[in-house]
Amino acid sequence: MKTTRRAFLGTAAASAFMISAEGRSRALTWARRAAERGRLFRDDIPTPALLLDLDAFEWNVAKMAALLKARGRGFRPHGKTHKCPEVAKALSKAGASGSCAAKLSEAEVFAAHGIDGLLVTTAVIGKAKVDRAVRLAAKQPDTMFSVDHAQNVRDLNDAAGAFKSRPPLRLNLAIDLLIGGRTGIEPGEPALELARLIASLPHVRLAGLQAYDGGASHTIGFAERKARSLETMARAVETRRLLERSGLECQMVSGGSTGTYNMDSEIDGVTELQPGSFMFMDLDYNRIGGQDGPVYQDFRNALTVVTTVVSKRPGVAIVDGGYKAFSTDRPFRPQAKEAALANVPFSWAGDEHGRLDLTGSQRDVTLGDRIEFIIPHCDPSVNLYDSIHCLRGDRVEAMWRVAARGMSQ
Amino acid sequence: MKTTRRAFLGTAAASAFMISAEGRSRALTWARRAAERGRLFRDDIPTPALLLDLDAFEWNVAKMAALLKARGRGFRPHGKTHKCPEVAKALSKAGASGSCAAKLSEAEVFAAHGIDGLLVTTAVIGKAKVDRAVRLAAKQPDTMFSVDHAQNVRDLNDAAGAFKSRPPLRLNLAIDLLIGGRTGIEPGEPALELARLIASLPHVRLAGLQAYDGGASHTIGFAERKARSLETMARAVETRRLLERSGLECQMVSGGSTGTYNMDSEIDGVTELQPGSFMFMDLDYNRIGGQDGPVYQDFRNALTVVTTVVSKRPGVAIVDGGYKAFSTDRPFRPQAKEAALANVPFSWAGDEHGRLDLTGSQRDVTLGDRIEFIIPHCDPSVNLYDSIHCLRGDRVEAMWRVAARGMSQ
Repeated sequence: MKTTRRAFLGTAAASAFMISAEGRSRALTWARRAAERGRLFRDDIPTPALLLDLDAFEWNVAKMAALLKARGRGFRPHGKTHKCPEVAKALSKAGASGSCAAKLSEAEVFAAHGIDGLLVTTAVIGKAKVDRAVRLAAKQPDTMFSVDHAQNVRDLNDAAGAFKSRPPLRLNLAIDLLIGGRTGIEPGEPALELARLIASLPHVRLAGLQAYDGGASHTIGFAERKARSLETMARAVETRRLLERSGLECQMVSGGSTGTYNMDSEIDGVTELQPGSFMFMDLDYNRIGGQDGPVYQDFRNALTVVTTVVSKRPGVAIVDGGYKAFSTDRPFRPQAKEAALANVPFSWAGDEHGRLDLTGSQRDVTLGDRIEFIIPHCDPSVNLYDSIHCLRGDRVEAMWRVAARGMSQ
Repeated sequence: MKTTRRAFLGTAAASAFMISAEGRSRALTWARRAAERGRLFRDDIPTPALLLDLDAFEWNVAKMAALLKARGRGFRPHGKTHKCPEVAKALSKAGASGSCAAKLSEAEVFAAHGIDGLLVTTAVIGKAKVDRAVRLAAKQPDTMFSVDHAQNVRDLNDAAGAFKSRPPLRLNLAIDLLIGGRTGIEPGEPALELARLIASLPHVRLAGLQAYDGGASHTIGFAERKARSLETMARAVETRRLLERSGLECQMVSGGSTGTYNMDSEIDGVTELQPGSFMFMDLDYNRIGGQDGPVYQDFRNALTVVTTVVSKRPGVAIVDGGYKAFSTDRPFRPQAKEAALANVPFSWAGDEHGRLDLTGSQRDVTLGDRIEFIIPHCDPSVNLYDSIHCLRGDRVEAMWRVAARGMSQ
């Protein structure tokens, strides 16, 4: 085989992935540099790996940003989807006003990378974490923390009061409303009572309401989904009105999702949306149904996992991606991106492997073939990888570090 | 509240977990040092987190090592379970002769940490990985690579031949047998043919047979499991005899698992076992049935995930562990370790949360309570975390880095 310049550079770049005594971060640094120099291509990436089609990603982000701008809503996309500072920066560039973070440690990573406008959507519970929250706020005073319990509000207030700073620290709190069956305080009077407590304390301030209904976002069928979201988000907006009638300022109602972005953004009183999956998309959202048909395709499938056929026998191909390469929390399986393989059944073959049943397939595959899959559920899949390989066509334009991977604390 | 010395040290240590501009590895280094100085305790660990009860772990390892020694079998535990050099070192100390690695990159990490006797159980496919395999072998000549395809054998031979070294390199190959429905070549004549190819080539050598039947290890019922494993492992042993009758040396048959360790270790011709889960244990193995009853409890549940109750309402507690904190590839759910909560139903509440239904519970829980769970499946759960927090009673004796986490390539 003739070694072309492209193949030579590719091999040199690919060898950079080898992990030696210098360790894996060194190996990643080398590979990242090769990508930045334009010397890394799709087929050089060791599998299994996370790929991002930059054209599709940018299209998704631009579409969401434009719609929310046109409707006068804020855009605070959820960082739990990407856990990646470079993605957060790309979203900011497109008009996002900040980033949600599911957990405190995720927010700390974003803050360490210069991302501001953070809203931590899970309550920060326990003395050590409350102390960390205060330090994060000291560094980035616009950070907001979700609360759903009076004792937690008092703990945060006390810790902020005990923290020495000039001017004195005042934490921004968002009341988390129980509208989706997960976390939060009941909307209406219970939320008002918590808001009054916040207003009565010197070291905290009410930033608004956190109102996420995970159930609505995944309701199958456009009409059913819209009905549910309008009903649950109405309870959030009513709570906002109740607080305002009671003399409390409530400037923010943050909620919504990829599944409900075009519904919630029409509701008076919802000030901003916090969608996540739209930027990458997954099979889970494809199946909730769109406005015009059974497949939701408002956004493009930008994220895939690429695998290699590592064992082959008649009718069966084994790829090198299993439970550790894909999310497994949904009942459906990864789906090959290539049309000729899209209907080939995938089954799990343990932690490290997947099995393709090729008996009914239009085309066979060969040992060493690289097969890309659209993933069942993007958030927990991204959380399995250190890097997102960003492709422009077949060229790796960048390797973005999933810096908050594993930061569920 | 009076601040005791213990509480003061604990708080100081816990604050080390905060991720600041210096980054997460720096935060982990601080926390690790606090642990080494005996200043970190169970309740200081930010949740969700992976805990290892060292007494139970050491008991599990000693039991397995003693049984295999008594039966004259080698012990090459599978590194895909722990992905942690410190665990591999503890196993070596207990008598392990090396470590299996599911993938090349996992083996590279182990090699970088000085672990030898590596057996890579997935075929190394593609030019870049074949080149990496050769470099790994140059560094650690006792490394073995699994093969199930003639072309891959030739590729490895050619790459080893092209590699300049004194003495010339010769790769150790283990023929992967298809006895479990996953990867491998058919036992018997097809395997013999591949063995002859290996014997005919100058830069590879036959190390033995890789014979893992994942189906056997998870067969429910002791008698059923034993019947299956005896049947499938017999095919591996027969293949060994066939090779030997054909004049080929075949010194190793490596197989077996946590589910079949006391069966396979009785089979003449099986030279070594490669169990993994026994060291940690999980609900998946608990349910396969033991020799004396419906629960398999040959080994202790040493590994747990600790969470915190971050939201509480009547009858419901939400903990801070969801799809990103636990494996989700099994149909059953995490189970609280505390007896009074063991029967409380756990349901998933998304990526970041779990829901406990307390309506039928003997005891209620409070916001901030820390709840430990035995996990459904240990390998993919460990793969979610950067560190294993090793406990001796309530003291964190060490934080072991899951250095090969995410190394599925």
